[in-house]
Amino acid sequence: MGAGRLEAFSDGVIAVAITLLVLQIAVPTDLHGHSLAHALLGNWSHYAAYVVSFMTIGIIWINHHAMISRLSRVDHTILLLNLFLLMTIAVLPFATDLIATYLREPTGRSTAACIYAGSFLVMSWAFGALNAHILLRKEHLLRKRVPLTERRQTLQLAAAGTIPYVAAVGLAFVSAYVTLAICGAVAIYYAMPAASRRAFAE
Amino acid sequence: MGAGRLEAFSDGVIAVAITLLVLQIAVPTDLHGHSLAHALLGNWSHYAAYVVSFMTIGIIWINHHAMISRLSRVDHTILLLNLFLLMTIAVLPFATDLIATYLREPTGRSTAACIYAGSFLVMSWAFGALNAHILLRKEHLLRKRVPLTERRQTLQLAAAGTIPYVAAVGLAFVSAYVTLAICGAVAIYYAMPAASRRAFAE
Amino acid sequence: MGAGRLEAFSDGVIAVAITLLVLQIAVPTDLHGHSLAHALLGNWSHYAAYVVSFMTIGIIWINHHAMISRLSRVDHTILLLNLFLLMTIAVLPFATDLIATYLREPTGRSTAACIYAGSFLVMSWAFGALNAHILLRKEHLLRKRVPLTERRQTLQLAAAGTIPYVAAVGLAFVSAYVTLAICGAVAIYYAMPAASRRAFAE
Amino acid sequence: MGAGRLEAFSDGVIAVAITLLVLQIAVPTDLHGHSLAHALLGNWSHYAAYVVSFMTIGIIWINHHAMISRLSRVDHTILLLNLFLLMTIAVLPFATDLIATYLREPTGRSTAACIYAGSFLVMSWAFGALNAHILLRKEHLLRKRVPLTERRQTLQLAAAGTIPYVAAVGLAFVSAYVTLAICGAVAIYYAMPAASRRAFAE
Repeated sequence: MGAGRLEAFSDGVIAVAITLLVLQIAVPTDLHGHSLAHALLGNWSHYAAYVVSFMTIGIIWINHHAMISRLSRVDHTILLLNLFLLMTIAVLPFATDLIATYLREPTGRSTAACIYAGSFLVMSWAFGALNAHILLRKEHLLRKRVPLTERRQTLQLAAAGTIPYVAAVGLAFVSAYVTLAICGAVAIYYAMPAASRRAFAE
Repeated sequence: MGAGRLEAFSDGVIAVAITLLVLQIAVPTDLHGHSLAHALLGNWSHYAAYVVSFMTIGIIWINHHAMISRLSRVDHTILLLNLFLLMTIAVLPFATDLIATYLREPTGRSTAACIYAGSFLVMSWAFGALNAHILLRKEHLLRKRVPLTERRQTLQLAAAGTIPYVAAVGLAFVSAYVTLAICGAVAIYYAMPAASRRAFAE
Repeated sequence: MGAGRLEAFSDGVIAVAITLLVLQIAVPTDLHGHSLAHALLGNWSHYAAYVVSFMTIGIIWINHHAMISRLSRVDHTILLLNLFLLMTIAVLPFATDLIATYLREPTGRSTAACIYAGSFLVMSWAFGALNAHILLRKEHLLRKRVPLTERRQTLQLAAAGTIPYVAAVGLAFVSAYVTLAICGAVAIYYAMPAASRRAFAE
Repeated sequence: MGAGRLEAFSDGVIAVAITLLVLQIAVPTDLHGHSLAHALLGNWSHYAAYVVSFMTIGIIWINHHAMISRLSRVDHTILLLNLFLLMTIAVLPFATDLIATYLREPTGRSTAACIYAGSFLVMSWAFGALNAHILLRKEHLLRKRVPLTERRQTLQLAAAGTIPYVAAVGLAFVSAYVTLAICGAVAIYYAMPAASRRAFAE
């Protein structure tokens, strides 16, 4: 299969997932005697989680494009690893809804934050697994030759990039807010030009 | 990255967002002894907000295409500004649901209208920021050279185009209906050929 | 704008609308002491409306492709008429949910059926308006010249094709079942090869 | 119509359907005094059904691409059979929600499992019907000639591939868990390289 088809389908899934995120932000139906502004402000965790998830999926899309555009063709293993990566992206609307709902609750916030950061961690592992498969085992499918040392460096950098998510998972039991903040910081970091240059090389 | 890929992904997000708008129009489940026609007519604010939002997103899509098609390639900053623009479009199903739900309520209608017009304002700013970045800082990525005076004129015209939304935000506290009417009028104005010629040039 | 872009965006909206139809089929949550099979069978109106709407949108997609593929470029009026056509398609998940919900109710079934068939009628008018605009006013945008008599014939045939929907709207007040049956029959008719040859020429 | 357009539209529908699957996984709203982890673990049937359906739709997408990429053009019958295939895919979010909801319920689990496996069976029949139509009746639309014996073998193999789904439907009345397990095993089997080589030839 040509890499273009894989990219078009992946773009479709990522575009739907990133747009479905909005469904977790509900319009308040009962104001309990307060103002609408009060009710909307009370939902702040939904907006915060929305922004972090939207940015993260957006950056994954940019990196996904960079990864696939290196390929001239794709084989069966790439299709399957990519399908797994798409599954980890497609569940993010659920994980986002989960942390947004429980962030302000005394019960369940640690669990929700742990699952939220865990979803990002699994997604970054799925990304890394696909990238490693392409760079280490399928170099004959690459459009142009890249030296092995450079490919290894790319993967080591990507592996290092998952460390903040490991920390975010662990810190979920200290503070769910810290977990969300780390996830947001990772998105901001990758959005910065220098990091992106590396991410692009990723 | 080629501009085609950016356009395909943006098209996907915009197509999903514009189609998800329909989810805010609920089928009446309890008629309270009235006719279905009565219940449906009572939901008129949902249809009005639907039409205004659908037209606005549709026109943004047309203008987005005009903006991106000027580019031969895109860089990292364009990708990020475009992602931010897409986020402001992707939240419109929520803002539409909000104004549709509260337009007829005594409490909250001003707040809802303010947020609705404010969403459009932020979207038009995001559009303008991307356009300004392309026209003033990345002229080397344009397919063909455009004189600086013409590029500045385009941006001034676009900046003037956001004034009605500023007015719509301010007037939300006078009348939510006026706010919705202004947003609708902006969409109709940009739908007219003369304005569109400018918008296309935008 | 090239016709390809218009087609890609339209495809996106139509693909999302046709797939969102499934959201109106709810999983029964309370069986009231009956079997699940009994509850599912009681929802038959949702499956019937789903099939009719899915087929109708699918056939509109086929005809939309035939209409747009005749064009080499599109102008502003075509973009706007197409946007209006897309809006009439994007509301079909709501109209489908409406008739599915009220078909078996004593109150509201005529209204629901009238709106359902009316949605199809407006959609076919929007299609006809765009087609007439292309064939009668924008023949210079066509890929190859078509004689005026042939173009007129195409439009007359398409106009005749909306008559069943007019009948379906009128008969809604006699029987909502007849309305749904007519809408289904139209879809089956256009699915048949001979009609499709004409529809393709449409 | 060129095969590329059919593929783009089909990709859109499949991408939306596979991403909508996540909507059936609800965030627990009432913990009934238990922990969130407890509530989430209690929803395990939703995650299991999600994974099985996601993998199955993903593999259908891969096979659909292989089937359509053999064609240079498509005719009206192919369009209609493909539309029917897309309908069988688009209803899977409902069927998935159904089995996920009733798998742990004493009443209705057999019915739900029967419908779930039955949906996959009908989908595989729709796929087979389209494939048979292409390979046996429309060989003049193929990009390159394939001997009749090879084409027949492909179809026989595909027909054999639906047998597990027949078994899954029948065994629904013995155990809904066995049905879900068979559907998952089919997805895993087709994900394996050897089977995929055949599926690709399919």
